[in-house]
Amino acid sequence: MATPGPEQINHAMAGFDALYGLELLDISDTDVYAQVTVRDQVKQPMGLVHGGVYASMAESMASLATAVAVHAQAETAMGLSNSTSFLRPITRGVVHAHATRIHRGRTTWVWDVRFSDDEDRTCAVTRMTIAVRPLPAPQKPPSAR
Amino acid sequence: MATPGPEQINHAMAGFDALYGLELLDISDTDVYAQVTVRDQVKQPMGLVHGGVYASMAESMASLATAVAVHAQAETAMGLSNSTSFLRPITRGVVHAHATRIHRGRTTWVWDVRFSDDEDRTCAVTRMTIAVRPLPAPQKPPSAR
Amino acid sequence: MATPGPEQINHAMAGFDALYGLELLDISDTDVYAQVTVRDQVKQPMGLVHGGVYASMAESMASLATAVAVHAQAETAMGLSNSTSFLRPITRGVVHAHATRIHRGRTTWVWDVRFSDDEDRTCAVTRMTIAVRPLPAPQKPPSAR
Amino acid sequence: MATPGPEQINHAMAGFDALYGLELLDISDTDVYAQVTVRDQVKQPMGLVHGGVYASMAESMASLATAVAVHAQAETAMGLSNSTSFLRPITRGVVHAHATRIHRGRTTWVWDVRFSDDEDRTCAVTRMTIAVRPLPAPQKPPSAR
Repeated sequence: MATPGPEQINHAMAGFDALYGLELLDISDTDVYAQVTVRDQVKQPMGLVHGGVYASMAESMASLATAVAVHAQAETAMGLSNSTSFLRPITRGVVHAHATRIHRGRTTWVWDVRFSDDEDRTCAVTRMTIAVRPLPAPQKPPSAR
Repeated sequence: MATPGPEQINHAMAGFDALYGLELLDISDTDVYAQVTVRDQVKQPMGLVHGGVYASMAESMASLATAVAVHAQAETAMGLSNSTSFLRPITRGVVHAHATRIHRGRTTWVWDVRFSDDEDRTCAVTRMTIAVRPLPAPQKPPSAR
Repeated sequence: MATPGPEQINHAMAGFDALYGLELLDISDTDVYAQVTVRDQVKQPMGLVHGGVYASMAESMASLATAVAVHAQAETAMGLSNSTSFLRPITRGVVHAHATRIHRGRTTWVWDVRFSDDEDRTCAVTRMTIAVRPLPAPQKPPSAR
Repeated sequence: MATPGPEQINHAMAGFDALYGLELLDISDTDVYAQVTVRDQVKQPMGLVHGGVYASMAESMASLATAVAVHAQAETAMGLSNSTSFLRPITRGVVHAHATRIHRGRTTWVWDVRFSDDEDRTCAVTRMTIAVRPLPAPQKPPSAR
């Protein structure tokens, strides 16, 4: 089975990621590129992109790339911690994000995510720690017992 | 002018907070209570509440309470860093959040936020650092120049 | 075998903890109390207690308490992340520290540490995540092979 | 007055930095290189370099470089938060550290520090936020009033 690419993942985007408008541009086990178009629905009351949007993008990018990479070895990925620093507000245009893997351990992966505005200024940074754990054994349906 | 209460703030809720469904229950300059009802729109692909939802709630609760408190002294509040640890997934019911101020400095306030599920188990924790800065001087309209 | 108490641990204190002067006062699997007496050797150039001292105390307190607790089940403990916020400088007296466990998971424990001065003002806070892993299998001595 | 270089700063190294053995190799307002030679005095009980040593190095490197840079404009620098992730233990040789400034704001600077072992493997990373504040006005001696 081929590893899903960004088009397939975007096509299947649902839940919270679809709600705030995550768009994946490129995904591998070392780098992820994604973006969110700024609109009122992603802003806080003063008209800036809400801090939670950066944290959400980082969470999804790092979790997804790790999950795709470890799936072949019957493992799953789950956010352990998300630490975001806000450096400069974004008020319009596009929130650009680039996640880089900085550690691939047996039980944790660590990613750095850089967020930039349309002038390529660094606006926020996130450090994401992702736990890698064995996939839960599949549950058999009751009739099969 | 009276400090706005949770009803007034909920009534005016807009942008990202309205999108993911933040409901404020109580707000003061030392404690904030809020919640989000779990539904598919706040979940990640495995059916758990998305990590970004916790980060977003913490960001809004701490920023809002600080902003309301410092507004009288002509200052504004803005998230500086948001550090969230994920301890136990929530899949249904309500995400309950309680923010407690642990530091009130001249230029930064620090809040701890605890997230719990309907059984009151701690599911995530956030440490929020909020910058307190002078309000920008009001801009005169062009005709007044 | 009885769990070691603070006197036994202090007596065996070596390495970095001995260098900067960690004194354990009480230790259990949910709470640890410790202190460091302020002296020039723990200060930075401006005469304040060095930020690294708080981080070091938190690291040792959380790691040690977790390690003692999981040793019986043949597991070991190791710091995964240490996030310290500095709220108010300490320049003299004693750095008092109280670590509280806020999560006991299968693979990670999370502790909050509060640092205070002689007037019991909160001066720094640390969130420590400790990884719990199986102990490496004991190595047999060469003669036993 | 010339900006002090690493030799001058090392010569004046005192307090905690001298205690654990910080050696500055190069310092500018965008990059700092430093190291600590591994010895028993910087280890934790299991023989690994103590997590607090990484946090301490990052704290000093970022604070010092920021302080030197803002001194000319009558400002001072002070650690606001230190967030360190531990990726791979170091047990011998030298702890190599490289701090890179990722943000220079009016009131905060943010630095990323990468720690590596003698094989240049990433062993820990720190994100340091440094507050930049006006220098306290010099106090006149009582007789001068």
